[in-house]
Amino acid sequence: MPRWKPDAVERLQTAALELFDEQGFERTTVAEIVQRAGLTQRTFFNHFADKREVLFVLSSQLQQEIISEIAAGDDTLPPLDAVVRALGAVADRMFEHQRAVVTRRYAVVAANPELQERELGKNAALTEAIAAVLHARGCDPETAFLAAGAAMLAQQAAFRKWTRPDETRTLRDLLPEALHSLRASVDRQPVDPPLPA
Amino acid sequence: MPRWKPDAVERLQTAALELFDEQGFERTTVAEIVQRAGLTQRTFFNHFADKREVLFVLSSQLQQEIISEIAAGDDTLPPLDAVVRALGAVADRMFEHQRAVVTRRYAVVAANPELQERELGKNAALTEAIAAVLHARGCDPETAFLAAGAAMLAQQAAFRKWTRPDETRTLRDLLPEALHSLRASVDRQPVDPPLPA
Repeated sequence: MPRWKPDAVERLQTAALELFDEQGFERTTVAEIVQRAGLTQRTFFNHFADKREVLFVLSSQLQQEIISEIAAGDDTLPPLDAVVRALGAVADRMFEHQRAVVTRRYAVVAANPELQERELGKNAALTEAIAAVLHARGCDPETAFLAAGAAMLAQQAAFRKWTRPDETRTLRDLLPEALHSLRASVDRQPVDPPLPA
Repeated sequence: MPRWKPDAVERLQTAALELFDEQGFERTTVAEIVQRAGLTQRTFFNHFADKREVLFVLSSQLQQEIISEIAAGDDTLPPLDAVVRALGAVADRMFEHQRAVVTRRYAVVAANPELQERELGKNAALTEAIAAVLHARGCDPETAFLAAGAAMLAQQAAFRKWTRPDETRTLRDLLPEALHSLRASVDRQPVDPPLPA
């Protein structure tokens, strides 16, 4: 077995997600993860501080990519559109080629309140970072906060569809639809006619 | 000292918030809280499972009040307006008379990542509960989720202003302004003119 394993992180992630999915996050040990991945505990701890980190290792990279993408984008676009465009571009690069892994991770996080709270914390930090970039582009702080929050809301709606087994469109393709629904929800007119009395 | 203390919860909350504020959440003990409040540990544990609970004891009541308020409200209002109206009415009943306490609590939670994640979890649960009520009123699930999320975003923006020392308007008065800013952020037109190149 060669010592140099360029795909170690990915193999550990896949093994961890399979085990979390099969037997739950709490009941899975690092020993089981490395056994399934065919690697050593030493390799595991070279890459992750603990088993929870396997699930959040991409978060800081994701934030950096999104911030760079917004900063590099067309600065004549309205703030919300600029953010949604960036979210779509980053999703194409970071999520589409590993759709099964990202979907499985989502299910594992959703099943555990502690992991879910951590995920919400990461999302809140990302929202603040996006708001800071919009503010630097010339938005007032309130508009920056609201546009960042609205973009994350559209992203969540699109993501929920994207993780469904029967959904084949990319996240980038689902985002405009989610943004359209968000605009319809926020507009004065209700999307649905009132129910008959 | 009379054994019957109708204001025990409020006194424990006030004492806890003062101490969390002065010396940090982590470093404050239940013994210090009861000493400051002039009560016993037994009284504390009659009302709260641990010191963290002092900060979250109102969350489930808040959720119930908001849900009832939406359900009792004018069902011809668009979903987002119906939720924002309910948030304002509940804020009047639950927050305005204890503005200093609520503001101090907000500062304590914001200073501690673990508390912040828990708060985000409670807010996510509230958003889902609001979405469920909107769905029951006839919204499709996506519109319900987006309108609930958008209302919570407006609430957060209004709340940030409300907790500023120089702000005297009520949360109910600040909500329409936040909703107006949200609508402006979500509309196609940027609120701010683009910066000169």
